[in-house]
Amino acid sequence: MSELRWDPLKLHWVIIATERGRRPRDFLVEEESGELASCPFCYGNEGRTPQEIFAIRPSGPANAPNWRVRVVPNKYPALRIEGELNNRGYGLYDVMNGIGAHEIIIETPDHQRGLADLTPAEITNVLFAYRARYLDLRRDMRFRYMVLFKNHGTRAGATLAHAHSQLIAVPLTPPVAATELRVCREFYANKERCIFCDLIGFELANGERVVKEFASYVILTPYASSFPFELRLYPKRHAHDFARSTDAELAELAVAMKEMLSRLKAVLKDPPYNFIIHSAPPLQERLGKPDYWSSIEYDYHWHIELVPRLTQIAGFEWGTGFYINPTSPEDAAAFLRDADVS
Amino acid sequence: MSELRWDPLKLHWVIIATERGRRPRDFLVEEESGELASCPFCYGNEGRTPQEIFAIRPSGPANAPNWRVRVVPNKYPALRIEGELNNRGYGLYDVMNGIGAHEIIIETPDHQRGLADLTPAEITNVLFAYRARYLDLRRDMRFRYMVLFKNHGTRAGATLAHAHSQLIAVPLTPPVAATELRVCREFYANKERCIFCDLIGFELANGERVVKEFASYVILTPYASSFPFELRLYPKRHAHDFARSTDAELAELAVAMKEMLSRLKAVLKDPPYNFIIHSAPPLQERLGKPDYWSSIEYDYHWHIELVPRLTQIAGFEWGTGFYINPTSPEDAAAFLRDADVS
Repeated sequence: MSELRWDPLKLHWVIIATERGRRPRDFLVEEESGELASCPFCYGNEGRTPQEIFAIRPSGPANAPNWRVRVVPNKYPALRIEGELNNRGYGLYDVMNGIGAHEIIIETPDHQRGLADLTPAEITNVLFAYRARYLDLRRDMRFRYMVLFKNHGTRAGATLAHAHSQLIAVPLTPPVAATELRVCREFYANKERCIFCDLIGFELANGERVVKEFASYVILTPYASSFPFELRLYPKRHAHDFARSTDAELAELAVAMKEMLSRLKAVLKDPPYNFIIHSAPPLQERLGKPDYWSSIEYDYHWHIELVPRLTQIAGFEWGTGFYINPTSPEDAAAFLRDADVS
Repeated sequence: MSELRWDPLKLHWVIIATERGRRPRDFLVEEESGELASCPFCYGNEGRTPQEIFAIRPSGPANAPNWRVRVVPNKYPALRIEGELNNRGYGLYDVMNGIGAHEIIIETPDHQRGLADLTPAEITNVLFAYRARYLDLRRDMRFRYMVLFKNHGTRAGATLAHAHSQLIAVPLTPPVAATELRVCREFYANKERCIFCDLIGFELANGERVVKEFASYVILTPYASSFPFELRLYPKRHAHDFARSTDAELAELAVAMKEMLSRLKAVLKDPPYNFIIHSAPPLQERLGKPDYWSSIEYDYHWHIELVPRLTQIAGFEWGTGFYINPTSPEDAAAFLRDADVS
């Protein structure tokens, strides 16, 4: 059983994933398995993953070929779905059982294509799978937050080359999300406006950091980018919850995502990257209260954050929480605007 | 001029180091320069660095050979020492000039030896240089905090192979330090005890996570380790300020550091790592108040934090602030205790 341990000095929880149990020799070789025959995510190898949780499949039985997008439990999960939290103290520390869900969204049956290479219709299916899993997992009362993210490339933490994203449901609100949610709530309490709507309005008027604007979405580089070529994708109209996006909205989002990933791939030669969806936590649904009891519908704005992994996170960044970014977001936006993605 | 930019959503400052000005093609090749002839940190190549700030040299002129440890300004500094902060607003954001100091401590003239390979006497000289630079920089009223850290190996962010550490003086307290200082102050306010002294006492009594104990220092793996084989080196007796260590204390610390680095090197085959010294900020000296006006002398406990860079920081960690650690600190401590460093 994995454990969540509380650091009373850094004020955060750490997941000690003992079931992964890595010993010193396990760290000496680090490789990305690119082999086709052995890939458990490939068409025809469905028996090599745990039983599927969800799939988009025009016809045919579960756990067989003929699928477009497939969701399976992670074979080596950081957190397990069975059990109770059992939150307890240990000396000066605190510890709880590692309860959660850890799912893999296999984005395509084709081993050779990355998310940027898929058609907008195929990416729309991936987004449909994201939405379906969000909506299902938030019915579990133990989960406070859902983290939907993608690691692309070994240097971004991917251990399998076949295109996939991950969804981890956690029993407490992660620190980064907690800060963001608090900032949004306080800004709204003072001004009755969404801070993200203000920021998006400022950036659209200014233009320097805008990479590409769509009817309903905008891609930009944040003014205080921690990393070179960091990107944000925002819905222009206020919306707090990714999982309430309509089919038509997800179809347009797929076009915007393809544009973002294609420009990145063109300018930086298919760099490793991570993206993460920041969406409102499911608390309001769990409490069974209508939205007007909570202000999160008004104060929070869902979005996607993307970081290409171009620089190493060194001692200074890790030890201080300060980031040194050697490329200004204005320069990065200009390079991305000029990318040839015809 | 570099800029410090405030992120109003994540509540942190970012350093946009425009003088490094990296363009897309600069990210495509990343290498560690191991070439001896061209190494600016080598004996005889003193003319290839900026003029030295400090050196330990038995005899002879500055910027010439015959040195043991040498401190020079970083040729590509993240922050510059000249100018005013000019803290100002920009839309919803804030920005200030990138004022600070960025120095390199060259730990040995010998290109082939790492810090773990130096003798305790040689490491003592490195620690003397650290202390001297701390004491000098804290006289500058613009600097709120000093970050002394080391990147060892390309994957830990080192761009030159020759053994060196870095000292960055920053005009504001970094987020990680701010949290730690606040926790210590609050713990002391409630209990009139140092939280670190409590933790060290608990760990010494428990023993599971103790790697090695010395007369005045202890090396252990923290209970809530974010990373595999993460280490802490603490002075056992309460002391808030690394820079007030006596010569004799630094000589014993050098023995403890060599032990820590040698065990790590033996167990994990010379892994990349970062370490950082956490010491009390210089505010009290700057205000010219005697120590009894401030409680930091009582509530804070200086120490060294070390992280081997064995796993990639992936999307989940970066996006949430949650860390997944696949090796329990109890296992890591056992492996390090059993290391053959004879």
